[in-house]
Amino acid sequence: MDKNLNLKDYILDVNDFPIKGVVFKDITPLLNNVDAFKQAVNQMVEYVKLKKANVVVAPEARGFLFASAVAYAADVRFVLVRKPGKLPREVIDIEYELEYNKGHIQIHKDDLNDHDKVVIVDDVLATGGTMQAIIDLVHQSKATVNGIVFLADLLFLHDKDLFKEYDSKSLLTYK
Amino acid sequence: MDKNLNLKDYILDVNDFPIKGVVFKDITPLLNNVDAFKQAVNQMVEYVKLKKANVVVAPEARGFLFASAVAYAADVRFVLVRKPGKLPREVIDIEYELEYNKGHIQIHKDDLNDHDKVVIVDDVLATGGTMQAIIDLVHQSKATVNGIVFLADLLFLHDKDLFKEYDSKSLLTYK
Repeated sequence: MDKNLNLKDYILDVNDFPIKGVVFKDITPLLNNVDAFKQAVNQMVEYVKLKKANVVVAPEARGFLFASAVAYAADVRFVLVRKPGKLPREVIDIEYELEYNKGHIQIHKDDLNDHDKVVIVDDVLATGGTMQAIIDLVHQSKATVNGIVFLADLLFLHDKDLFKEYDSKSLLTYK
Repeated sequence: MDKNLNLKDYILDVNDFPIKGVVFKDITPLLNNVDAFKQAVNQMVEYVKLKKANVVVAPEARGFLFASAVAYAADVRFVLVRKPGKLPREVIDIEYELEYNKGHIQIHKDDLNDHDKVVIVDDVLATGGTMQAIIDLVHQSKATVNGIVFLADLLFLHDKDLFKEYDSKSLLTYK
């Protein structure tokens, strides 16, 4: 397989979505191309192995698009972060700030333990609010965040030292 | 890897979720076990290859939990079915019946074409309302449904001839 695809060729800018003035990064063409998706997943798998993680944690819904394949290919466990009302057993819940209101996300209380070394997987880093909440859920689960991996980092939406206390990697960056 | 795990050992019955009287099948322990998840994905991959599909289609959010790894491991494309407001380009939209109201799901209009042979991937077959809507979306996209694969089929929630006009497979059944 050609390892040198430019993955940006498989991410579309869609203007005025979800609201006027926003340019949305549409990653579905990357999923819909066998070689591009494989290359993205393989690069995440390399990172998970480098970080010696034994679990990937990912938020619904778009984190699942990569984390499932990464967990499978890296031979690590796959733990979900979901919105309220989705995880049926006892949860840890975190409230976090959204643009105009507050959101909640949850993790099952016993899905991670204090020996776990986690890489968190998501598709796009924007303001980082959701990712900070996921980090907090992992910490409250007594596990360790060994790294964070994104398909794409929208650098223009956050300070450059965001998450600097963690190891993180983005396969692509947009300035 | 041991190919003979009983995957039911990794699916928990949770009583009274999401509402009193319902017994919810919690698949998160299966995702959180490397060997069980690998076995489930590998069985789905075998089915995708048997059906000579070149694309998997899956609905958010739980369909993504398996379809991502299946697409990766089977070397096929991965196309999303999502709720309204999530897919940014032109969509085909279907309205379908839920228990007490109506829902909508969508697919990008150009993600499939008339040469595509699709296997639809989802976690649990309950009443089948969502799956029928996904089938309709694939047909409206001019693609062919070569098969349907579920992790688990809750036989007691639907007629036994549901989807009998399609080839389908469930890794597990519950009576």
